[in-house]
Amino acid sequence: MKMDDADLLKSLDQHASGGTGAQPATPSLECRLMRHLLHTLGDPPIRLTLWNGESVITGADHARQIAGGLRIANRATLLRLLIHPNLYFGEAYGSGAIEIEGDLVALLEAVYRHRRAPSTPWSRGLNRLLRWLHHGRGTSLSAARDNIHRHYDLGNDFYGLWLDRQMSYTCAYFPSRDTTLEQAQIAKMDLICRKLRLRPGDTVVEAGCGWGALAIHMAQHYGARVRAFNISREQIAYARARAQVLELDGRVQFIEDDFRNIKGRFDAFVSVGMLEHVGPGHYDELGRLIDACLARDGRGLLHSIGQIQPAPFNAWIRKRIFPGAYPPTLREMTGILEPQGFSVLDVENLRLHYALTLEHWLRRFENARWQVQKMYDEPFVRAWRLYLSGSLAAFNTGQLQLFQLLFARGASNNVPWTRAHLYQPLQVKVGP
Amino acid sequence: MKMDDADLLKSLDQHASGGTGAQPATPSLECRLMRHLLHTLGDPPIRLTLWNGESVITGADHARQIAGGLRIANRATLLRLLIHPNLYFGEAYGSGAIEIEGDLVALLEAVYRHRRAPSTPWSRGLNRLLRWLHHGRGTSLSAARDNIHRHYDLGNDFYGLWLDRQMSYTCAYFPSRDTTLEQAQIAKMDLICRKLRLRPGDTVVEAGCGWGALAIHMAQHYGARVRAFNISREQIAYARARAQVLELDGRVQFIEDDFRNIKGRFDAFVSVGMLEHVGPGHYDELGRLIDACLARDGRGLLHSIGQIQPAPFNAWIRKRIFPGAYPPTLREMTGILEPQGFSVLDVENLRLHYALTLEHWLRRFENARWQVQKMYDEPFVRAWRLYLSGSLAAFNTGQLQLFQLLFARGASNNVPWTRAHLYQPLQVKVGP
Repeated sequence: MKMDDADLLKSLDQHASGGTGAQPATPSLECRLMRHLLHTLGDPPIRLTLWNGESVITGADHARQIAGGLRIANRATLLRLLIHPNLYFGEAYGSGAIEIEGDLVALLEAVYRHRRAPSTPWSRGLNRLLRWLHHGRGTSLSAARDNIHRHYDLGNDFYGLWLDRQMSYTCAYFPSRDTTLEQAQIAKMDLICRKLRLRPGDTVVEAGCGWGALAIHMAQHYGARVRAFNISREQIAYARARAQVLELDGRVQFIEDDFRNIKGRFDAFVSVGMLEHVGPGHYDELGRLIDACLARDGRGLLHSIGQIQPAPFNAWIRKRIFPGAYPPTLREMTGILEPQGFSVLDVENLRLHYALTLEHWLRRFENARWQVQKMYDEPFVRAWRLYLSGSLAAFNTGQLQLFQLLFARGASNNVPWTRAHLYQPLQVKVGP
Repeated sequence: MKMDDADLLKSLDQHASGGTGAQPATPSLECRLMRHLLHTLGDPPIRLTLWNGESVITGADHARQIAGGLRIANRATLLRLLIHPNLYFGEAYGSGAIEIEGDLVALLEAVYRHRRAPSTPWSRGLNRLLRWLHHGRGTSLSAARDNIHRHYDLGNDFYGLWLDRQMSYTCAYFPSRDTTLEQAQIAKMDLICRKLRLRPGDTVVEAGCGWGALAIHMAQHYGARVRAFNISREQIAYARARAQVLELDGRVQFIEDDFRNIKGRFDAFVSVGMLEHVGPGHYDELGRLIDACLARDGRGLLHSIGQIQPAPFNAWIRKRIFPGAYPPTLREMTGILEPQGFSVLDVENLRLHYALTLEHWLRRFENARWQVQKMYDEPFVRAWRLYLSGSLAAFNTGQLQLFQLLFARGASNNVPWTRAHLYQPLQVKVGP
């Protein structure tokens, strides 16, 4: 939402007098609480408006137009926001106790851009504590199953409404910004296959295969023999059915099991969008597993949402959307590989590609919102709108990153000479 | 050196009987000491021969041919090797107390390939201790000046004998393996300029500029305005003279000062081959300096020799060649950037390009060895032969890595959309 200067000046006047024109000169308690809340958030240029029409802006001035507004329905919501804004904003938006004025993504981006870094030793310490408490709750085999079930088994019909035809639920790769989502998901799979330099007959193990698009792509277009692991029952069933239809079930095996039970030796290890669910407490274990299952001259690829500084995922996301999730820093990802003697060959940060992927998903989701509402209910629609919008805002503002790491054993010289082959016209035939 | 099977069998027979055919059945003390030495080194398939003709091989069998031999001139050298092989091998080779049978690079590669990882907690602890002792001695401003002076002020004439015409003393980039060294050094500079997306008028600060090739290239071919820092007096004098001849002295300023004294704000920060001399104890300081001098939408690039697991440089290299040097792991390099809120956009590992660069340097050095001997003496020639050969072997076997990291501020969206532009035909005119 954009305001013109006259509007802005009026808002600032109201702000200076403690609220709307109708308010008394002494700011009300609620007004002071709203200001405190905005200050806690780093004074983003947004307007808070109460049930009674009182409103506050702290972070806008002549140079910074306000990015949108929040309308808070009642006192209980305001108080909850004061106690734990990260958690209760999502809860209140989902239930309708908060309404947005203007564009949700723009508003969230403004909040992210102004977020104060946890710069005092105390707040860094608290962050670390929260993180370790979170790991403590951890992702044991059974917790992992439960976490994954809650998100990925929502129903293939639901995801089918807004994902691409092959149901890729990870960051796409857009060779140019006007690439379609369908093309970009295929381009992502080709980018990975090319980074791994897959050749016919190569054996691949995939940890966390989603609906199986990448495993099928590797078998269909690169002639690889793939064993793909996933603990989501619905996803595995879908992937198996698709492989059967494509008559690839001789070359792709979908295994309903935790990646920690991978056995055997493979020419390539690949994991796309699983690391977020592993948790730093299990990174050493993952490193040892990759070491155990990768051939001497093997190649590996880790693709994961990440962040720049260690911090737990947004509390509401952890509660409602991704239980047990944690996005690693690049330093933490490297810490999975280097202690096992792996050499990182190539890191590509695809942050803005995930923002664009999310733009596509959000648009498709909004187009299908009536169907989603029929399948679930309005709070579900609102929660998913917030999740997709918040993720888009987080990638756009650098709160989240997307790291793709290619690696090999330290002593292996079976590594690409340059990366030029990734940018030459594709030799493989890209099928349906 | 290659042996045929008959030779190998003969060697093994001699080994089984404890030495050459002339030896008694009970192995001599020296023989047992040689075996202990080889075992300490991880039983590489090499032959040790003593002053009296006694010889030992422990690591070769029918599957592994021996990679070469060492001839040890006297008992004192054998004992020194037992005490500190990493340090005294170099000393003894330099003085001629060790002679090599076969190819020096192949022999060193065999030693590196068989080196035991420091896998016990005790040896890991010792490594850590050595590393911290080393940092303690550290690279304060004055120590840095002394360290750099010892290596880089050996004389421009000496380096001119075997470097490329522009005197680039860092890893080159070979678009294909048959690229010449001259072309590859220019290609490296272009790769860096393209990663940084330099445009005319951009301001650049370079920390550790060597003989100024990159700074001059940026000004000459990309129209950048460059401030380049170096504490080596001879290098700075050379760089200034070259800039003047090219009439670029209005656009490139060479400053004889430590990077820690960089002031101002720049569109790009670049450092090629300096980080090795900074020392982990100063990484935080470097991170803060980059944060202080990089514009909001600036881009940065760090190019450094690295390694997979933290360990001090070879003791002899540290004593004779690079006092105070330490090659960081990728994790440590990331640790310079992430705590300051920088987002790593791209990491490229150019390890095998450094091996090829060193092949060129070594060949040129050998061609110029009589001139080097006239400038210095035979031990100097031998020490530099060992240093270049050992570095080549270390990059070829993965003991050393070469990381090139591109980064920007976490919130900056002024980042390249893909890396395809790095692999498109060059638009700039590449001059002399």
